[in-house]
Amino acid sequence: MPKTDGARVVADLKRLAEFGRYKSGVHRPTYSPDDVASRHWLADRFAEAGLVPAIDGIGNVFGRNERARRHLLVGSHSETQPYGGWLDGALGVIYALEVARAFAADPDCAGLGIDAVAWADEEGHYGQMLGSRSFTGAIGEDELAACKSRDGVPLADALRTAGFADRPRAEVDPARYIGYLEAHIEQGDTLDSTGLRIGIVEAIVGIRNYWVRLVGQQNHAGTTQMARRKDAGVAMVRLATRIHDRFAELAGPRTVWTIGRMILDPNAPSIVPGRAEMQVQFRDTDTGRLAAFDEALLAMVAEADRAGPCACTAEPMARVEPRAMDARFQQAIEAAAERHAPGGHLRMPSGAGHDAQILSHRLRAGMMFIPSLNGVSHHWSEDTREEDIVLGAQVFADAAAAILQAP
Amino acid sequence: MPKTDGARVVADLKRLAEFGRYKSGVHRPTYSPDDVASRHWLADRFAEAGLVPAIDGIGNVFGRNERARRHLLVGSHSETQPYGGWLDGALGVIYALEVARAFAADPDCAGLGIDAVAWADEEGHYGQMLGSRSFTGAIGEDELAACKSRDGVPLADALRTAGFADRPRAEVDPARYIGYLEAHIEQGDTLDSTGLRIGIVEAIVGIRNYWVRLVGQQNHAGTTQMARRKDAGVAMVRLATRIHDRFAELAGPRTVWTIGRMILDPNAPSIVPGRAEMQVQFRDTDTGRLAAFDEALLAMVAEADRAGPCACTAEPMARVEPRAMDARFQQAIEAAAERHAPGGHLRMPSGAGHDAQILSHRLRAGMMFIPSLNGVSHHWSEDTREEDIVLGAQVFADAAAAILQAP
Repeated sequence: MPKTDGARVVADLKRLAEFGRYKSGVHRPTYSPDDVASRHWLADRFAEAGLVPAIDGIGNVFGRNERARRHLLVGSHSETQPYGGWLDGALGVIYALEVARAFAADPDCAGLGIDAVAWADEEGHYGQMLGSRSFTGAIGEDELAACKSRDGVPLADALRTAGFADRPRAEVDPARYIGYLEAHIEQGDTLDSTGLRIGIVEAIVGIRNYWVRLVGQQNHAGTTQMARRKDAGVAMVRLATRIHDRFAELAGPRTVWTIGRMILDPNAPSIVPGRAEMQVQFRDTDTGRLAAFDEALLAMVAEADRAGPCACTAEPMARVEPRAMDARFQQAIEAAAERHAPGGHLRMPSGAGHDAQILSHRLRAGMMFIPSLNGVSHHWSEDTREEDIVLGAQVFADAAAAILQAP
Repeated sequence: MPKTDGARVVADLKRLAEFGRYKSGVHRPTYSPDDVASRHWLADRFAEAGLVPAIDGIGNVFGRNERARRHLLVGSHSETQPYGGWLDGALGVIYALEVARAFAADPDCAGLGIDAVAWADEEGHYGQMLGSRSFTGAIGEDELAACKSRDGVPLADALRTAGFADRPRAEVDPARYIGYLEAHIEQGDTLDSTGLRIGIVEAIVGIRNYWVRLVGQQNHAGTTQMARRKDAGVAMVRLATRIHDRFAELAGPRTVWTIGRMILDPNAPSIVPGRAEMQVQFRDTDTGRLAAFDEALLAMVAEADRAGPCACTAEPMARVEPRAMDARFQQAIEAAAERHAPGGHLRMPSGAGHDAQILSHRLRAGMMFIPSLNGVSHHWSEDTREEDIVLGAQVFADAAAAILQAP
């Protein structure tokens, strides 16, 4: 089995975290100067590991093994959320680099090649998982042309500034790869709270998002009698309460739902709100349960609209279907975990989205988690115990070897 | 009885509305260049009417009758809400001007003096009813020093720019006045929806405001299981729903309550909200009912805090006590209304705050409403039928004369 160097992994992660360091975390939005510099740094590390480096036209960084017969694509994304954590996707990118180095040093891995990759913009600074969707042909030119940052900077301008605009965008060659393997921090506290050290992802959840809008009538909060009000804020809190009650009845053990965004208009203490909006999101790995939630939400919205006095509509937004991870890849990760941490691993869904779900449409895909301290992620205080980082690298390398060595 | 000139009233209102005209309404925030220009214009009109004009150190415009033996202070505020209506307080200021002119032309009013006034900043651009509170000694130097606009401009800077900073602030001389009389549009639709033309204000409502704050724990909306969430948004909508249900049980026929402002933090679709805030307001003329609402709100907040999982607190903000209008002033307005619009008037509370409630602490005070079309106010589309504007001026003048002529 290939032997990983835990100290080298930690050192590389720390060096990568210097690009955009913020407190104990990292601020490295996609295509920012720090992000561009870090991608060139990664390309150089891939080259040092004997891989052929390339950055493509969307910013994906590849390190290809051009000597092997069988290839596994391994990686994650390297940009961060604003003032985000130092591990997150960077962990999976450095694991990919380390696995490539460990394979190169292991005679048993002769002919088996790791292609390492650092995807661009999984975090959605300019669009939805742009790098992996570009690579798998899951995004059209029209959508790319419309992508922009929250500040309104068009993707094309950002790519030009980054120096990536005139490069071709790489496309997956399914014949080249046995599959795709990704490591990431869990981002929840399932592992950390139970003292487990490795998560084997069974499936990545599907996500539904709806904009629910309520339209009443704006009025003076002192002079408008209750009986003739059409208060969109009252309608929103009543509907939101019903949604929380009903979803709790329909939920499976791992279903999650969130009303994370609410807006009153004009949002002034002495004005009866004329408009209200909330974003309702739910996630599950079970397509049937997601459909039941869809149906229940639309029924509650229709009922609120019928009951009045406010008009109520629900607009579905971009949806993500659940994606199962490859069963043999799960077995390989589980066997490797059992070898290095007997009884210290768990099969689990991923509640967060990952590039692996995009890749799973074109390649067999697998995914491994290591613990997040207290479940914190997308925050500069995110962290993982160093022993878990080191253990995860070795388990991940073993799993990659088992997958590539399987007949 | 003094005879008002309806055409002159309408013409003056239209001329005043040119200062800051916006569509069919007016944008004239306190101490803006348009507001300052309009105050100088009003001072000139007061002088033309034979009054001694003066603008004081807070921007109040006075026109004093220095020849009369008995005085009634008459007026309202002249600035507007942002993109507000052309009548609102301006109506009461021009009525005051017209009543002064009508008295001057009527031999029966010899020796009876109207002091006209246009208060500054009733609308709260820099503070709470600054002009009338300054005049009645209801605001301290500390509070004045802390006043600023929503854009952060200190009151002192605004007064300096306006040219009012070095003037003395006028103070009420209770011995000079029989009382204070104010006219205003209703701002609700009680009169308009019932075809009535004059409202006799019995009392101005008291107002309670609370900031209700909920503190949970911010988390990832995909990886945080429902059972361990502390979602401040869920806590807020559940509590808001209970508040609306409970207040409906406690309400009197004219009680109003509003949750006009709600804030989720960080208000992002994929983040479990860690903090939520809402502003809860209620109004009634009955102090006992306001106390019952206070008690119910605090009990619900304490119960939510006890039940968890989010901490919940309520912080009382500036409160306004209900103020009864003088009974004899009400009778005078009612008698005048019955004379000019038999059966076309109504005794009613004011659900909105007015300078009259401030003046009522130092002088007998009375207040008269004319209809608002469809109850619209604080919006540029606010309007009133011209015949109601004309009628209102005459009723108001008759009432003022009756008050001043009473023994």
